[in-house]
Amino acid sequence: MSEVRHKTGLAKMAAPVLNKLNSTQKNEALLAMADALIARSADIIKANEEDLNRGKKQGTSSSLLDRLALDESRIEGIAEGLRQIVQLPDPIGDTLDTIQRPNGLHIQKVRVPIGVIGIIYEARPNVTVDAAGLCLKSGNAVVLRGGSSAISSNRKIVEVLHEAMSHTAIPQDALQLIEDTNRASVDEMLKLNGLLDVIIPRGGSSLIQNVVMNATVPVIETGAGICHTFIDQSADPVMAEEISINAKVQRPSVCNAMETLLVHEDYAAQHISRLLERFRDLHVEIRGDDRTKKLASWVNTASSEDYATEYNDYVLNVKVVKDVREAMDHIASYGTKHSECIVTASEENAARFIQEVDAAAVYHNASTRFTDGFEFGFGAEIGISTQKLHARGPMGLPALTSTKYIVSGSGQIR
Amino acid sequence: MSEVRHKTGLAKMAAPVLNKLNSTQKNEALLAMADALIARSADIIKANEEDLNRGKKQGTSSSLLDRLALDESRIEGIAEGLRQIVQLPDPIGDTLDTIQRPNGLHIQKVRVPIGVIGIIYEARPNVTVDAAGLCLKSGNAVVLRGGSSAISSNRKIVEVLHEAMSHTAIPQDALQLIEDTNRASVDEMLKLNGLLDVIIPRGGSSLIQNVVMNATVPVIETGAGICHTFIDQSADPVMAEEISINAKVQRPSVCNAMETLLVHEDYAAQHISRLLERFRDLHVEIRGDDRTKKLASWVNTASSEDYATEYNDYVLNVKVVKDVREAMDHIASYGTKHSECIVTASEENAARFIQEVDAAAVYHNASTRFTDGFEFGFGAEIGISTQKLHARGPMGLPALTSTKYIVSGSGQIR
Repeated sequence: MSEVRHKTGLAKMAAPVLNKLNSTQKNEALLAMADALIARSADIIKANEEDLNRGKKQGTSSSLLDRLALDESRIEGIAEGLRQIVQLPDPIGDTLDTIQRPNGLHIQKVRVPIGVIGIIYEARPNVTVDAAGLCLKSGNAVVLRGGSSAISSNRKIVEVLHEAMSHTAIPQDALQLIEDTNRASVDEMLKLNGLLDVIIPRGGSSLIQNVVMNATVPVIETGAGICHTFIDQSADPVMAEEISINAKVQRPSVCNAMETLLVHEDYAAQHISRLLERFRDLHVEIRGDDRTKKLASWVNTASSEDYATEYNDYVLNVKVVKDVREAMDHIASYGTKHSECIVTASEENAARFIQEVDAAAVYHNASTRFTDGFEFGFGAEIGISTQKLHARGPMGLPALTSTKYIVSGSGQIR
Repeated sequence: MSEVRHKTGLAKMAAPVLNKLNSTQKNEALLAMADALIARSADIIKANEEDLNRGKKQGTSSSLLDRLALDESRIEGIAEGLRQIVQLPDPIGDTLDTIQRPNGLHIQKVRVPIGVIGIIYEARPNVTVDAAGLCLKSGNAVVLRGGSSAISSNRKIVEVLHEAMSHTAIPQDALQLIEDTNRASVDEMLKLNGLLDVIIPRGGSSLIQNVVMNATVPVIETGAGICHTFIDQSADPVMAEEISINAKVQRPSVCNAMETLLVHEDYAAQHISRLLERFRDLHVEIRGDDRTKKLASWVNTASSEDYATEYNDYVLNVKVVKDVREAMDHIASYGTKHSECIVTASEENAARFIQEVDAAAVYHNASTRFTDGFEFGFGAEIGISTQKLHARGPMGLPALTSTKYIVSGSGQIR
């Protein structure tokens, strides 16, 4: 039997045990796991060095190496993340609905774990701990399939977590790491209907597209973000500049950063030069349409391919539009239904934008950078769903649950 | 361009128009559609006769022909179904959550339509109207792909509905019927990512499995039901008999009917002969395990294949078990996570069964036949989800919605 099938089978058998644990039991296990990460940080850092050395030899970029690197302080941060998950309310067992029927049937809709969750992800080893913590707290067994670049770190981290779990109520088998980092192990996971209940991909768009297009197991699609900010005619210039600069440069590498700025023609005529110069001073490359180039001849030309690109970098498309209609049409054509913003003083245009733009999060006068489980007050997130089923937007613990109807009777028949 | 791609594209363009309509506008359209079905019932019956004649020539079974047949009274029933959908509360625009953040951001989670829903179904032409009514009421455009056996009826029904819609606010394009009944049109729908937001299959298990295994568009799996009733040691014999007989014979052809009866060994020793004789008198064929056959030698032998079969017919597997544990293990092995029942006077065993059995609906002392949108008080249903994501169990209008976060600020940045 393959590693994938074997370990997922073990996870499936552990799921019912985990399902029965109460919050205290699960929290005790998570705290033991956090303590173990700190206690064993030297071993984890040593394993991480293997990954870093391999990466250097393979010519991995310094920014990727930085994301991969672990030190005492990062491991403390990761352990602290687990402790924060302990603080979150346990969604399992919550009653979402109570229905009393005329025939005397009493129906309750309660939250239950999904079962076995597969996570397919890249690089950063902190995802290993985050994902494990969120899945276990919500009563789910989890099968982790990280990337080859972090395999030594991931293996050591899971070894440490397993040791810690051995003294707790959560069975070790509820946490599985697939160590085979060949593409074939991903392909196998995607087809494990009956063993895996859902797969959540976390990573770049090619990873996510592979999962979406090839999985027969249900998928929660996350992450791709071509986010827009539209500065309307009536926008306050100070607010518009602060929001658009924040949305682009506060952290360009993330999915809720802005990729394209849409500017009302009247606003552009008055204010665009200064705004674009500010971007230039912040080392942002500007790619503009013809109307933008007329107002700032130094900018490069944006192609329609550029509008469809998630740069995650210091590059920004800029387009001058006639009105909110043209802005919304552009967003409908090029957006990924992640986060979209209108900066305007017009309540009418704001309402129209909010109603018509189809995205997980629609903003009026705030930076798209807030689309995040922590910023929304969920305390944690397993990812940001850009699909419309099950969960949309930042996913906290409740997104990792299903429901069950409990029907209590006294002999009712139809 | 293929019919499937063309019509789904039209539906996608109509979806934003439909999205903006208020409940009154949608309800007026549904009422006009109901009136038109009645007014044009002679034409619909005539088209239905074409289907029936073709079916007879092809040797279709009389039970299938009966399901296909339309007359005045059935059309009135279908129109009445639409009027009932009008009475249901419109879920669109409901605020599900309000979050006020310390930084002043005001976040609302509101219900929005999913977008474009594909329904792939068989035989019964009433699904054409039901599905159209539920999707349109919940603000979704819908692409219907019915089976070849009902194509003349479906074509006429959609023609009648389109005519009625032409005088209403719902654009005709929001309702599409795929007239190509070759298998290829289904295969094409399954891959229409970007145009179709979700596919809901309704029909037999081979139809559903084809959709689940081949779709890249998200799917809501419905319907397959191998449902069990477990009669515990302490069950009241009258209640146990009434519930199990009702679960089997009140309507054997549906997914929430019982396929396997599990009986505690002590209960079996005392009461199983009489119960099985009652089933026999009701023309139910019994297939039993060895222990059942010892108590009632006349029953046939159940194979493990039988336990895995959804008969939808007057056939029942019977198995004697040692205790609730063995009953739950059998259900975990053979159940389809649809509806499972325990009949018991023991609160402890009931609680254990309810907690541990993994199914959309778990019953204590009531027939599994109640798993149904109407019986749960939802007023209608688009199907019964047997998956764990998005919706589980009977799906009413809210199951046909997604959500959107609306974030209102005053210039907040990170």
